[in-house]
Amino acid sequence: MAALAGPWWRAARGGCGWPRVARLCRPPGPACAPHRRGLRHGPGSLGARGRLGAGLAAALAGMTGLAAAAFGHVQRAEMVPRSSGTTRGRSPGRRGGDDDDEEPDELTRRCGSFMASPVTDLRELRRRPEDMKTKMELMILETQAQVCRALARVDGAASFSVDRWERKEGGGGITCVLQDGRVFEKAGVSISVVHGNLSEEAAKQMKGRGKVLKIKDGKLPFTAMGVSSVIHPTNPHAPTMHFNYRYFEVEEADGNKHWWFGGGCDLTPMYLDQEDAVHFHRTLKEACDKHGPDLYPKFKKWCDDYFFIAHRGERRGIGGIFFDDLNSPSPEEVFRFVKSCAEAVVPSYVPLVEKHCDDAFTPQEKLWQQLRRGRYVEFNLVYDRGTKFGLSVPGSRIESILMSLPLTARWEYMHSPSENSKEAEILEVLRHPRDWVH
Amino acid sequence: MAALAGPWWRAARGGCGWPRVARLCRPPGPACAPHRRGLRHGPGSLGARGRLGAGLAAALAGMTGLAAAAFGHVQRAEMVPRSSGTTRGRSPGRRGGDDDDEEPDELTRRCGSFMASPVTDLRELRRRPEDMKTKMELMILETQAQVCRALARVDGAASFSVDRWERKEGGGGITCVLQDGRVFEKAGVSISVVHGNLSEEAAKQMKGRGKVLKIKDGKLPFTAMGVSSVIHPTNPHAPTMHFNYRYFEVEEADGNKHWWFGGGCDLTPMYLDQEDAVHFHRTLKEACDKHGPDLYPKFKKWCDDYFFIAHRGERRGIGGIFFDDLNSPSPEEVFRFVKSCAEAVVPSYVPLVEKHCDDAFTPQEKLWQQLRRGRYVEFNLVYDRGTKFGLSVPGSRIESILMSLPLTARWEYMHSPSENSKEAEILEVLRHPRDWVH
Repeated sequence: MAALAGPWWRAARGGCGWPRVARLCRPPGPACAPHRRGLRHGPGSLGARGRLGAGLAAALAGMTGLAAAAFGHVQRAEMVPRSSGTTRGRSPGRRGGDDDDEEPDELTRRCGSFMASPVTDLRELRRRPEDMKTKMELMILETQAQVCRALARVDGAASFSVDRWERKEGGGGITCVLQDGRVFEKAGVSISVVHGNLSEEAAKQMKGRGKVLKIKDGKLPFTAMGVSSVIHPTNPHAPTMHFNYRYFEVEEADGNKHWWFGGGCDLTPMYLDQEDAVHFHRTLKEACDKHGPDLYPKFKKWCDDYFFIAHRGERRGIGGIFFDDLNSPSPEEVFRFVKSCAEAVVPSYVPLVEKHCDDAFTPQEKLWQQLRRGRYVEFNLVYDRGTKFGLSVPGSRIESILMSLPLTARWEYMHSPSENSKEAEILEVLRHPRDWVH
Repeated sequence: MAALAGPWWRAARGGCGWPRVARLCRPPGPACAPHRRGLRHGPGSLGARGRLGAGLAAALAGMTGLAAAAFGHVQRAEMVPRSSGTTRGRSPGRRGGDDDDEEPDELTRRCGSFMASPVTDLRELRRRPEDMKTKMELMILETQAQVCRALARVDGAASFSVDRWERKEGGGGITCVLQDGRVFEKAGVSISVVHGNLSEEAAKQMKGRGKVLKIKDGKLPFTAMGVSSVIHPTNPHAPTMHFNYRYFEVEEADGNKHWWFGGGCDLTPMYLDQEDAVHFHRTLKEACDKHGPDLYPKFKKWCDDYFFIAHRGERRGIGGIFFDDLNSPSPEEVFRFVKSCAEAVVPSYVPLVEKHCDDAFTPQEKLWQQLRRGRYVEFNLVYDRGTKFGLSVPGSRIESILMSLPLTARWEYMHSPSENSKEAEILEVLRHPRDWVH
């Protein structure tokens, strides 16, 4: 964590439990056991600098035209990955209770495996267990924890910092970043849950997307949430991966609800490994196929179209799946599909990193990786809708939005790989996407 | 030049004189003297990949809404800096003449010191010596050569590659880049001269900028030209510098001409050196003051406002001058002002590089430089109007537009310098611009 050194970080004090919300949803194990959980807290506030919600929140904001959002508290813990989701926690219903021995309920048990306490108060989640907002929030928290756990296990050396932040107007997020590890140069996994009222401008934007929304007294309540991640390994033979799954809900004046899901997962290898590409796509296809045979082909093409660096005439990687505005047949069915996709992240990607993280590589191969990282930066800053919108919103949590950028990148004037080289081979695929599975 | 290795580059053949236009405007010295001039030519074409004109052309395009521009030939020479502007050349009037002993005229003499032959045919330049287009083209060519010569002298090891390219619809440019040198990580100096007809869309954009233009038969002839440069030294104590000076002319249906100049020069130090900041600003102020006492204060503020990374709440550097749409009192007077500014580039900047290029530095200081380079990338890709527009135009010469990006950059999650550190000191200035001279 040396690279994160700064006044507020160096001032970090020892502690245990989760920042702020430990009493609501306690970590597993005995109280105050820093040796097991490695938790450390920062002093809390980053001062007057504005912040919005997560790389994902940026994407959400991009979808919603979310107005300027200022955020309040930010708190940090550094954690070692938990070995198991089976936990012993407290009853969140008994706030402040420190010494009861009640058996934890299902929600408390699930919370025990998350990187930090849910954004929404546990009493609220308990009050509406069948609400899609509850299901989705728990699902993205679970996904975040699964991915962080799997990556930290593979890395073996560095651990994730955990920043839990709040949004003044409602909601907040949890941003987890592992930096300068043995296997990962930079890995970020962020969730956010934000709610409030859509601005008229945002409502107009929705109209432009075919959604006509009835506003009452200038108000249009919305909730947006999601999980977002970009993983940059150190080894140039281990591919970069990105995923994002999100849910949106708007309530009209007459109580009518609009809802939709969006998301995707895509791979950016620096060198082509045919077997890896097939494994990645096949795993995503299997997740899709459970919910309909037309989903994978449709979302695979959407992905190739979306992650296009137009000025280079290249895709940023070998694709995966991408979708937006998914609002049929029912919230439940789409949720089950999105859940399958989220569960496919670890099995589609982690074996590829494990396979390549100790591959030998030359300085030339590292240099090529750096140049490809430059293209990744170009896509994210020039084209990615979520990033662009997030950066344009005053008060955004910039660090969460830009956690997607690689630790290092390079731009050489007129670089062009030799014909028939391995570098030319992947460029050819980036220029002409292939079908990896049928 | 190893880093530029690629199929077309490796195929480079020996030669002498300037690519393509050597017969029009020969270099100084005896014919075919590669030992003196170090010229080498690439085979010419980069194939079917589209290209537009120069970082500058991007800026120009940004100004004009220039329609998609496909470019033809690209040719390259690598040159050692010329020791003197006094040259012996041929009469450009006698195309193909190889053995005459006529004394060169003034234009030929000036051409002898340029990095490559002017974009406009010498006969055309000779036909209209008093036209502002002629004066400006020669001035930007002179500026390019002066800056390249000064930088190559300071570097002492690497030399500038010279790419001369043509634009299908009219005009072209010369892009000079020095990469991986002793003193400079990457230094690009580009000129472009483009002409054609403005699209209706572009004419509308001009209207939005207060220029009402009368179109005849859907045509609106324009000429745009300029010089653009970004210099990234290797040593973190040597500042980065950018400058750009440009001229625009549009001719209405009734023959009425609209013209304006734009440009600026700004400094991006990684560490604050008060003396450097004062020297840089004072040199620019002196150049401005010759033409009016109000120019420097006005353009200094404009610069602070323009080079603002809004999502970070920071300027990208300690400023300089910036102006646009300068069209009074007369073309001649504004040209003289712009010429003074262009002549101030070398004396304002080169002494700072000479002062710091051999400074000792720590790995931490190099790391801070890399982080600041990341911010530079953020500004250029997210905010810079010229870059944004250039990237959005299909067929742009992307390599010329993005030559402004540093060779290497870095993004760390939540990096924040310690209080009272040298890193915090410069951040404070970037957040609250100062007046350096009065």
